[in-house]
Amino acid sequence: MTGDLTIVKSRAAVIPAPNASIEIREFEVPELVPGSALLKVANAGVCGTDVHLWHGKLAGVPYPLIPGHEAVGTIERIGPSPISYLNGQEIKVGDRVTFHDVTKTCFSCYYCLIAKTPTKCPNRVVYGITMDSTKFPHLIGGYSEYVYLIPGTHIIRVPDHVSFDGAISVGCALPTAIHAVTRSPMKHGLNVAVQGAGPVGLMIAILAKITGAATITSIDQAPNRLEVARRFGVTHTLNIRETDLEERKQALREISDGHGPDIVYEATGNALAVPEGIELVREGGTYTICGQYTDSGTVEMNPHLMNRKHLDIRTVWGSETTHVYQAIRTIANNYDRFPFEDLVTHSFKLDEAQKALETQRDQKSLKAVIRPHE
Amino acid sequence: MTGDLTIVKSRAAVIPAPNASIEIREFEVPELVPGSALLKVANAGVCGTDVHLWHGKLAGVPYPLIPGHEAVGTIERIGPSPISYLNGQEIKVGDRVTFHDVTKTCFSCYYCLIAKTPTKCPNRVVYGITMDSTKFPHLIGGYSEYVYLIPGTHIIRVPDHVSFDGAISVGCALPTAIHAVTRSPMKHGLNVAVQGAGPVGLMIAILAKITGAATITSIDQAPNRLEVARRFGVTHTLNIRETDLEERKQALREISDGHGPDIVYEATGNALAVPEGIELVREGGTYTICGQYTDSGTVEMNPHLMNRKHLDIRTVWGSETTHVYQAIRTIANNYDRFPFEDLVTHSFKLDEAQKALETQRDQKSLKAVIRPHE
Amino acid sequence: MTGDLTIVKSRAAVIPAPNASIEIREFEVPELVPGSALLKVANAGVCGTDVHLWHGKLAGVPYPLIPGHEAVGTIERIGPSPISYLNGQEIKVGDRVTFHDVTKTCFSCYYCLIAKTPTKCPNRVVYGITMDSTKFPHLIGGYSEYVYLIPGTHIIRVPDHVSFDGAISVGCALPTAIHAVTRSPMKHGLNVAVQGAGPVGLMIAILAKITGAATITSIDQAPNRLEVARRFGVTHTLNIRETDLEERKQALREISDGHGPDIVYEATGNALAVPEGIELVREGGTYTICGQYTDSGTVEMNPHLMNRKHLDIRTVWGSETTHVYQAIRTIANNYDRFPFEDLVTHSFKLDEAQKALETQRDQKSLKAVIRPHE
Amino acid sequence: MTGDLTIVKSRAAVIPAPNASIEIREFEVPELVPGSALLKVANAGVCGTDVHLWHGKLAGVPYPLIPGHEAVGTIERIGPSPISYLNGQEIKVGDRVTFHDVTKTCFSCYYCLIAKTPTKCPNRVVYGITMDSTKFPHLIGGYSEYVYLIPGTHIIRVPDHVSFDGAISVGCALPTAIHAVTRSPMKHGLNVAVQGAGPVGLMIAILAKITGAATITSIDQAPNRLEVARRFGVTHTLNIRETDLEERKQALREISDGHGPDIVYEATGNALAVPEGIELVREGGTYTICGQYTDSGTVEMNPHLMNRKHLDIRTVWGSETTHVYQAIRTIANNYDRFPFEDLVTHSFKLDEAQKALETQRDQKSLKAVIRPHE
Repeated sequence: MTGDLTIVKSRAAVIPAPNASIEIREFEVPELVPGSALLKVANAGVCGTDVHLWHGKLAGVPYPLIPGHEAVGTIERIGPSPISYLNGQEIKVGDRVTFHDVTKTCFSCYYCLIAKTPTKCPNRVVYGITMDSTKFPHLIGGYSEYVYLIPGTHIIRVPDHVSFDGAISVGCALPTAIHAVTRSPMKHGLNVAVQGAGPVGLMIAILAKITGAATITSIDQAPNRLEVARRFGVTHTLNIRETDLEERKQALREISDGHGPDIVYEATGNALAVPEGIELVREGGTYTICGQYTDSGTVEMNPHLMNRKHLDIRTVWGSETTHVYQAIRTIANNYDRFPFEDLVTHSFKLDEAQKALETQRDQKSLKAVIRPHE
Repeated sequence: MTGDLTIVKSRAAVIPAPNASIEIREFEVPELVPGSALLKVANAGVCGTDVHLWHGKLAGVPYPLIPGHEAVGTIERIGPSPISYLNGQEIKVGDRVTFHDVTKTCFSCYYCLIAKTPTKCPNRVVYGITMDSTKFPHLIGGYSEYVYLIPGTHIIRVPDHVSFDGAISVGCALPTAIHAVTRSPMKHGLNVAVQGAGPVGLMIAILAKITGAATITSIDQAPNRLEVARRFGVTHTLNIRETDLEERKQALREISDGHGPDIVYEATGNALAVPEGIELVREGGTYTICGQYTDSGTVEMNPHLMNRKHLDIRTVWGSETTHVYQAIRTIANNYDRFPFEDLVTHSFKLDEAQKALETQRDQKSLKAVIRPHE
Repeated sequence: MTGDLTIVKSRAAVIPAPNASIEIREFEVPELVPGSALLKVANAGVCGTDVHLWHGKLAGVPYPLIPGHEAVGTIERIGPSPISYLNGQEIKVGDRVTFHDVTKTCFSCYYCLIAKTPTKCPNRVVYGITMDSTKFPHLIGGYSEYVYLIPGTHIIRVPDHVSFDGAISVGCALPTAIHAVTRSPMKHGLNVAVQGAGPVGLMIAILAKITGAATITSIDQAPNRLEVARRFGVTHTLNIRETDLEERKQALREISDGHGPDIVYEATGNALAVPEGIELVREGGTYTICGQYTDSGTVEMNPHLMNRKHLDIRTVWGSETTHVYQAIRTIANNYDRFPFEDLVTHSFKLDEAQKALETQRDQKSLKAVIRPHE
Repeated sequence: MTGDLTIVKSRAAVIPAPNASIEIREFEVPELVPGSALLKVANAGVCGTDVHLWHGKLAGVPYPLIPGHEAVGTIERIGPSPISYLNGQEIKVGDRVTFHDVTKTCFSCYYCLIAKTPTKCPNRVVYGITMDSTKFPHLIGGYSEYVYLIPGTHIIRVPDHVSFDGAISVGCALPTAIHAVTRSPMKHGLNVAVQGAGPVGLMIAILAKITGAATITSIDQAPNRLEVARRFGVTHTLNIRETDLEERKQALREISDGHGPDIVYEATGNALAVPEGIELVREGGTYTICGQYTDSGTVEMNPHLMNRKHLDIRTVWGSETTHVYQAIRTIANNYDRFPFEDLVTHSFKLDEAQKALETQRDQKSLKAVIRPHE
């Protein structure tokens, strides 16, 4: 066991029950088992999912819950056996790290090993969402001074030149975006359109910029989101409140030599975006759906149009450790090119966690974070 | 110029106008220009599309029309310059051949050369569908004693051991099916489901059999079609009149170790099949739409379900020369294994062409053919 | 803990040191830890690798060694916690099973998670090859009455209609072959050539047959191997002792419409096969190397020829659990079509293990097995 | 017919025979047939291949030859029928254009249509290389005041903001490089190494930069080439005269977290680069050979190393119209980011064509051009 052993308590923000306000509770720091480590949280990201958790909208969530599936910080303590990064290098006390919130992907089931779609593994357990704060090791969410990193958690180093704000700025959105562009690969010179300029949509647009897209069009209804997208390099924006579908189709054709975008990514959460995306993408193009995480019912779609356009349509669920790993590298490799830190527009003390959720709910922030030690 | 030059007239069946009955008319055989050839038709396939043409349901079709986009026969005459097969071998008078009905794919446009989706080429011209019988070279449909094969037509040899009935039995359905399984590749050992047991669905099922699928389930409402599918080797059938969606899902899960089919192919022409296909395919699987050739309006679909299942969805339009080439080879390679000739259940003389259309319209035949020289 | 607890000893064949003859030793059956199980071995496959182990040709092998990385049998006993198959179904005492010999693929390293090449995982441990019989749990090779299946071993059910001889007949060759055809996918209608008609080459040829290859040519120097290949359905054979390279190229071109094989698979163990394979494959084709498992030095190759032929060349190392899983399903799905059991030409009692190795060394057997309970 | 009809003569540089010095000859401008056009050459690129043509090193080349397979200029005259760009837009007199030097890819043969490897089409004809200046239309090379663009030539517009020097700067190297990165796709965040910093290697490195590679290492022996590569954004260089293989392997591992480059591209023309590339690439990585255009004999390679590293190796021959089309777009999209015009270090009048060849032979230039109207 290495590290400071004087820490024996951790304060954490707890959602006692659906729709109840957050309470700050104190937990004992459990003894570290072999393979585990204790993370001192620098920043915990506040995510739209956390608002859903507060409102009790996700099934299978155990309350009282310590939310927080995005966190960066320093290794405070390491259990009785050494632990390593993915490249085999040993993790040391004091290392600046983040971790993949999905742990216990089993790599023993049909989905992990045969179908090779590990995000469909039925045995996944997620920090801050599906783990139970009433059971060992209790400290399983990022809204906390310390997080107990259970054995098998994939821990990823944050490079020295990336600040904690820079590292948390992309939240879980960049891994999701990387999964999307992995399944529907970008290449340089394409005309790309992204439906939605929220966190995931913005990250897809940034990836398009990094990959040398010819044009990148962000489509949203919020002028401030489209303004941020422009600041991160998208070449065109379309506000769906100021244009109708035909105008959007026409605009996209004009910037793509008459054909329409080669790839359209959907990251809206709005079911109506899907039939529109089919309309927008060029014939023979690729449409990618990664924003339909909650069930908002059915929409009218035209199978003949889908068929006639000769499309590849891919849908993307969840993210894997590789996407988190690549996310940190993407930030690090492009840290000088994009003002990642500027995305963190709001920060809160642990005691203000309720206010953080409300800020997120009201969409006032680009990225809100909780700093438990301030 | 080689071949018998005494043939100067050709009788052909003509649809004078939408919904008008077929008339038999006589045409002069035009002089062969360099690169062209004259085909003596042995069998012309009668296709569901021909019924649509009769009913005037396709846009851009010039009437009076000689229908027939599927034909096999012998080379009667060759124009003043030699012509070759795809492998460079010279075509000779008397050769037994078929040809790709889509000619003049331009290979000079964005879709042919850049997007590499030649079935979306706007310059395509199709024998028996979009060519004008009032203009040179007039003999542009298979319901005719002779077809004028214009320069650039891709002519494919029919191997000696394949009869003309065997060659025509798969019509344009097998090339379409090959395009579908090229875009959503089968491999041995998969659990495959096919929605629709009409010509295209049956051909996809046969390809699954040839490729060593673990299970093949044909889904249709016509008991006789499902019976034919069983005769060609599908392992399971589901009649949608005798089962409901939940029963079909359950049945498909049971034969696939609990997961559902790895690939589902849609070949129904019924828009409602598409949302059902999304339900049937396993998580992380592949869904392929190739049967929505006419616009039958919108259906209700659930984008969240599509997203959550983490799918590849591909839509497939038209067919290329390679698919016709592969179709003939597929028949030839598997001629002993499947009773292809048995698919030809009805044959008609040229004078009976109207009756042939009616038989097709009433779905009495598996494959109906016209034999213009009988 | 379930199962017969009276078994407390297991006899096993041990290679005491490189080049030393096998001794039969008796081991105590260790207590089962949670997640483990005890396998009663019905058949252990004798593999060419076992001869290499006997001769001390592999690095990193701990002696004394219980060889045997291929085994089928019944579950004799299950540890204190339940264990499951990949589909989540519980494993029961008496189940007929096999298992993936590579255990402890870590799914925590760069190769497992980022590069997604788990066969390059540096943490792999292999039954019968890299595990140490002097340490717990001792019974770690198939040449034994019982094998201790450590927690995390991927256990795969053998279907009822597949005999133990049928299941062992393909050894570790079929998983390797499945890996090869997964990396260089076959599809129906291709012209396939396979260099080598030993176990892996034969299995690739069988997979080509199952997948509907147009032609399958096996190339070897042993007439009896080529004879077996013919019995399993290859359409052509070439004996490299009876032909020279030009004749082989010519023969392969003739059966492929003049082009040469679309895919060539190398499974020879002879370095000279690789430059020949580059010569044999058609322009624009695919060459797949999976037989160069031991270092036999360099050969002369022509980079210009490689470049000019515009090839995909893939090399394939090791096999994953999915390949073992698919192997069992492949046998099961095609059990009526191929005489798998006939491949088991020699069987030995445990006491005859030394003789089994010698038979394998002298290449007298197609598949030799050890039956420890006979 | 549109355009200035007063031009009736064109001066052109002619290689009379292998190793003979260039002569300037005058040709009559032939009448334009339907589908053809006349190009007024602004810049003709001088390519290493032109030196090989001068030295008679290519087979199948008809002398006397007008060299020049890279040219940009303006449309001077259009034949009696309208002609179009790939997107269907009509080409007008005065348009600034370039064209794909390979014309008459047949799109009627096995390689074009079935194998879908059109660069292996045996019917290809190349401006400035395989066309015969003694036959109609004579003006078939870029070292000329005018080039006769025969019907079917794929003509590509040069955007207004790209100068003729900018457009010619990448020569035929960028299309070749685009073909290479299409076959072995780059994606953002990869560690890329490029063997060779000549024209093709430099273009691959630029494409890696555009696509957001994490690191790009150029390997060459010429310090000035490596200096140019650095100016275009490569992150690391290795001089093979100053390092040995082990040092290069070590250096590449250090900048890639210990693994080695994910993709290595070979663009050297030196056969020894190929075994080295196999050494350099990481396990499970991709190696791409596109520089072995002339036969420099065999080299020693180790098949076991190839197999053990579990590689994808792709070889790339020639380029297609899409690669030329994408090249122009790549320049246009990245014109502000890279100093393309600076690559044109030497320009010559038509009368100095011999001197141009000698400059290229002596590797004094980055890109030399001939300006026939200066």
